Amino acid sequence: MLALVAHAAKDLRIEERPVAAPGEGEISVRIALGGVCGSDLHYYNHGGFGTVRIKEPMILGHEIAGVVEAVGKGCERIKVGDRVAVNPSVPCNRCRYCLEGRQNQCLDMRFYGSAMRFPHVQGAFRERLVCWEAQAHLAPEYVSLEEAAMAEPLAVALHAVRRAGSLTGKRVLVSGSGPIGALSAIAARRAGAAEIVVTDIADGALAFAGRIGVDRTINVARDPAAMDSYKADKGYFDVLFEASGAEAALRVGLEVVRPGGVIVQLGLGTGETTLPINLVTAKELELRGTFRFHEEFALALEFMGRGLIDVKPLISATVPFADARDAFELACDRSRSMKVQLAF
Amino acid sequence: MLALVAHAAKDLRIEERPVAAPGEGEISVRIALGGVCGSDLHYYNHGGFGTVRIKEPMILGHEIAGVVEAVGKGCERIKVGDRVAVNPSVPCNRCRYCLEGRQNQCLDMRFYGSAMRFPHVQGAFRERLVCWEAQAHLAPEYVSLEEAAMAEPLAVALHAVRRAGSLTGKRVLVSGSGPIGALSAIAARRAGAAEIVVTDIADGALAFAGRIGVDRTINVARDPAAMDSYKADKGYFDVLFEASGAEAALRVGLEVVRPGGVIVQLGLGTGETTLPINLVTAKELELRGTFRFHEEFALALEFMGRGLIDVKPLISATVPFADARDAFELACDRSRSMKVQLAF
Amino acid sequence: MLALVAHAAKDLRIEERPVAAPGEGEISVRIALGGVCGSDLHYYNHGGFGTVRIKEPMILGHEIAGVVEAVGKGCERIKVGDRVAVNPSVPCNRCRYCLEGRQNQCLDMRFYGSAMRFPHVQGAFRERLVCWEAQAHLAPEYVSLEEAAMAEPLAVALHAVRRAGSLTGKRVLVSGSGPIGALSAIAARRAGAAEIVVTDIADGALAFAGRIGVDRTINVARDPAAMDSYKADKGYFDVLFEASGAEAALRVGLEVVRPGGVIVQLGLGTGETTLPINLVTAKELELRGTFRFHEEFALALEFMGRGLIDVKPLISATVPFADARDAFELACDRSRSMKVQLAF
Amino acid sequence: MLALVAHAAKDLRIEERPVAAPGEGEISVRIALGGVCGSDLHYYNHGGFGTVRIKEPMILGHEIAGVVEAVGKGCERIKVGDRVAVNPSVPCNRCRYCLEGRQNQCLDMRFYGSAMRFPHVQGAFRERLVCWEAQAHLAPEYVSLEEAAMAEPLAVALHAVRRAGSLTGKRVLVSGSGPIGALSAIAARRAGAAEIVVTDIADGALAFAGRIGVDRTINVARDPAAMDSYKADKGYFDVLFEASGAEAALRVGLEVVRPGGVIVQLGLGTGETTLPINLVTAKELELRGTFRFHEEFALALEFMGRGLIDVKPLISATVPFADARDAFELACDRSRSMKVQLAF
Repeated sequence: MLALVAHAAKDLRIEERPVAAPGEGEISVRIALGGVCGSDLHYYNHGGFGTVRIKEPMILGHEIAGVVEAVGKGCERIKVGDRVAVNPSVPCNRCRYCLEGRQNQCLDMRFYGSAMRFPHVQGAFRERLVCWEAQAHLAPEYVSLEEAAMAEPLAVALHAVRRAGSLTGKRVLVSGSGPIGALSAIAARRAGAAEIVVTDIADGALAFAGRIGVDRTINVARDPAAMDSYKADKGYFDVLFEASGAEAALRVGLEVVRPGGVIVQLGLGTGETTLPINLVTAKELELRGTFRFHEEFALALEFMGRGLIDVKPLISATVPFADARDAFELACDRSRSMKVQLAF
Repeated sequence: MLALVAHAAKDLRIEERPVAAPGEGEISVRIALGGVCGSDLHYYNHGGFGTVRIKEPMILGHEIAGVVEAVGKGCERIKVGDRVAVNPSVPCNRCRYCLEGRQNQCLDMRFYGSAMRFPHVQGAFRERLVCWEAQAHLAPEYVSLEEAAMAEPLAVALHAVRRAGSLTGKRVLVSGSGPIGALSAIAARRAGAAEIVVTDIADGALAFAGRIGVDRTINVARDPAAMDSYKADKGYFDVLFEASGAEAALRVGLEVVRPGGVIVQLGLGTGETTLPINLVTAKELELRGTFRFHEEFALALEFMGRGLIDVKPLISATVPFADARDAFELACDRSRSMKVQLAF
Repeated sequence: MLALVAHAAKDLRIEERPVAAPGEGEISVRIALGGVCGSDLHYYNHGGFGTVRIKEPMILGHEIAGVVEAVGKGCERIKVGDRVAVNPSVPCNRCRYCLEGRQNQCLDMRFYGSAMRFPHVQGAFRERLVCWEAQAHLAPEYVSLEEAAMAEPLAVALHAVRRAGSLTGKRVLVSGSGPIGALSAIAARRAGAAEIVVTDIADGALAFAGRIGVDRTINVARDPAAMDSYKADKGYFDVLFEASGAEAALRVGLEVVRPGGVIVQLGLGTGETTLPINLVTAKELELRGTFRFHEEFALALEFMGRGLIDVKPLISATVPFADARDAFELACDRSRSMKVQLAF
Repeated sequence: MLALVAHAAKDLRIEERPVAAPGEGEISVRIALGGVCGSDLHYYNHGGFGTVRIKEPMILGHEIAGVVEAVGKGCERIKVGDRVAVNPSVPCNRCRYCLEGRQNQCLDMRFYGSAMRFPHVQGAFRERLVCWEAQAHLAPEYVSLEEAAMAEPLAVALHAVRRAGSLTGKRVLVSGSGPIGALSAIAARRAGAAEIVVTDIADGALAFAGRIGVDRTINVARDPAAMDSYKADKGYFDVLFEASGAEAALRVGLEVVRPGGVIVQLGLGTGETTLPINLVTAKELELRGTFRFHEEFALALEFMGRGLIDVKPLISATVPFADARDAFELACDRSRSMKVQLAF
């Protein structure tokens, strides 16, 4: 079986790995599609982010869907032939955070393709994956495997939206029109946002946002003054989803979000961020981090299955697994791509 | 100028009233459409509800839209010829509740066509209405005056939805498929509900709910056992919007809402309600009242204007003003009607 | 070993039970004190409450403290000789509610001395108790075992207070001045309530409330008009802790709690409660159930240990185990007692 | 009448100002005491903070209490001879934030001794002050005017505590043991915090915190390693009140606050703050600004009047008005002073 292994920055190899059989409570999935995530690109481009670095060869990937090939003893819910999305997140369900219902903060989390712990948790860009039955969620009828492989990033966006509290009738700004920003806009609309403005510094990225029904897109590199009108009377937006990780975006956000407003920080920056924090104090802003997801994985599939969320406009390319490096390069080029998926 | 005046139960008269000119800060509106509300029907059928009774002739009506005919001194926002929905709610903006941002609880509220205070506040089923400029909200382009006259009941539903907190991904039950229940279902979907079930005891009412995209309708009179599966494991729904005012609906709700779930009580019952309150205690349910609306009036028009909410399927009949009594009788017949509007 | 066994209403027997040795992860506690709870009295007086009935002999009791006599294999935290309060609540930590951090709603809960499931979970009014090490919490220095045995009802009150949200500066009404009501008043003060009024229909019960620093006590049987001034301008109190289970108390509460206020329902009534529910709707009240506790058990001990909560004024009598029936009769007499404890 | 006027950094003058008579709805107060606030010190030391600069001579001061000397027409609540604390905050009660109940964000706020708007709002360090009757709050019996003059900074702390949500049973860290930090610790205890740790870089300041019943004080300049144990398992504290304005304090806070925890930012720093914002994201922290107060002013007096909060240990010196410059220098010296008050 082949897998896509990161050895270091810019050192990505397709390598042979042994095939395993599913044990008790496990299933084996023939992976069909795998979406390239921003964190995959961080490993590819920089060998990690912040203090998280690749210290041993690690299979990348955690946005995956496929078809069940075999099921181990004791599996009841999933059958051979089922089309499934696989949740890459395996919390321990025993630590104090898990028992508070905060599984995404699990002290013993195993998350596919992550170098946060050592030995690293190997990822899912591979032809066959053995996982717990509980990780597999059926792709609803009429939901393609391409869409099913979007369940993971959509879950991230849905979790971010929930972190913001009720959005019904709110004015929402999304800074950063990459996959996570665009999905946040989609999720915010689903959650009742009345008005959604998306900013970015790349026209190509904003063009995708234009296709998903947002009210306005602004290229803040070319037209920074477009934000000025939103600064009047202490700010306009109720909520900002900061999905760029750029300091400049957060700084503008502090000016255009109204007193008492909420800034949900999704984007992982490259390290230190400098802010005029007195604005947070004087305007009583709330800056809330959001990290991954938990039950939103199942919810993402349900929303797609009921026709309430459509992620298809964001899948910009499907590249054969053999050309994985091309796929990664394409995914890095925001002028040409949004979500790039590998086809196995 | 003619107006529709309730004198007592079943005593509804079209009477002449003097025409007034708009004073400073006021406008005059040629009313085009007026929706018949459940409270109008209570006055018509019973002369009031609970301790609120008609004690003097009162013009009914508070769901209205029309065209501006004249504007008083100092008006800047509204022009002659503007198509507007008129907010029937005039809080004092000075009492302690107003200054807490809780204007719908104003101690000196003036609400059109309400017998809560005496002298009663006269209503808006009349050919011409003089109101404050601030009460008038422009009907957005492509929003008909029929739809604009739905802004008021939609605002009630949006306020109820906000009272529930975030609905993103929630399982929602709506009991009572009248205009308020149906609009609550629409608003809950807009606010991100994943699954919506609507119950009623009349097939005609449920047929309307079926047209607005809910996931399931249940006639609990004919098929009460259909609720049983929702009782397993302490309950299924995260939120119930109780829009029937029926004790039986609330009692079932206590069983099918899951621990920690929320019941938003919209329906005004006929008085005393008997509940097994130990269920509230043991399941830690939250029963929350919701009453009218405030800023949701503008929001209702905005949602319609942006194409995010469509109320047209709920407007079941438009009846000439001269036939107002027929309109009221029709509105009482849930097998044939949802929202009945008077055309002036 | 002797234990106090309820066979039916008014049929309470001290019986011999075999002594068990602690298994792996278990400890054996020599029970020193056991507080008589309202639910114990329900079993004693009526053989149960609502649909919960004694169907087989059941050892009563769940408010207990004692000294560790033996520890099983694998215990590390607790040593022989430790003074401990024992948490009577054993959630499964696996069901969906537990994994949401809502352990008090566990689908497989084992709670001492409760007939909610069958076979019943035997209680802790016994000379020796074998329990999980995790259930035992050290009594802090300077906290007597009498006080430690109050950890359980105090935990109930602390959970109720948390259900109310922030109480800082709030006006609080407590209806029902039994042990749970009085502890709720203490907990509400600890949580920042500015003003606390306690009502009851028995002077004896109110006398205890007077000793714990509340601002006013009202005998609503003798002086119902005393509540009238709280009804002005739609109500006075921000929060009501309804600890009486009496319909009349809740009905008054709907009038004296201000719009948007919170009613926390602690008291378990005898069944059906009739309410003018339109008040909930029109005033947008929130009626929230509260049930038992989870992490508040440890918190109760911590508050006592730090000298931040003093429960001693509420321990009205300590009765030898041999006179358990007398203790139960005394606990039923609200004119003479607050919390009655059995001394083993 | 004499007043204390800041002309520029380090240029503080006692000057003559005309005496005014109270108009309709106004009262005249003979100021007895005025507390020196951190913002007064900013004007004194630096001529302002951030973009807020003294551009014309401005009377300083906003923490004041005194005795009513005269009342204007229409005043009913306040009488000559009343001992009052004066609320220095005058919101417009008409702008959009006021009508949302967010008066501390008023777009037309007038706050004593503030250079935020121009012309500046003159302050209250003067012998006589004319203000609205509504600004005056009676000092409760047994509350000295010294304590009454602490109502304003205590209100700031109470507002900060409310911004944190429920604190019942929470572990609280306060960074910065100046008057606002120490009052936040007092307010947090009143609001139910179970454990309170206070940090500072000055032993003198921490000595005061030691007198108000906190559980531990840490000099992080001398013993930075003392914070390390709080970093285990992603953090220990539920809430941090950041009252130092120091970047280093906030950076440590991101490490010692547990996932999902809240950081309330009270301290106004000198400008740009650099943070490892990925910690906010990954731990899902919430950074909330807090600014001044509104109804907490009355609450501060009520808490003191009921004996529920004692601010006396924080009043470190009372200096004659004539020696105002000495008072300001003393207030700058954290080794010798906490709250310094001027006596008029």
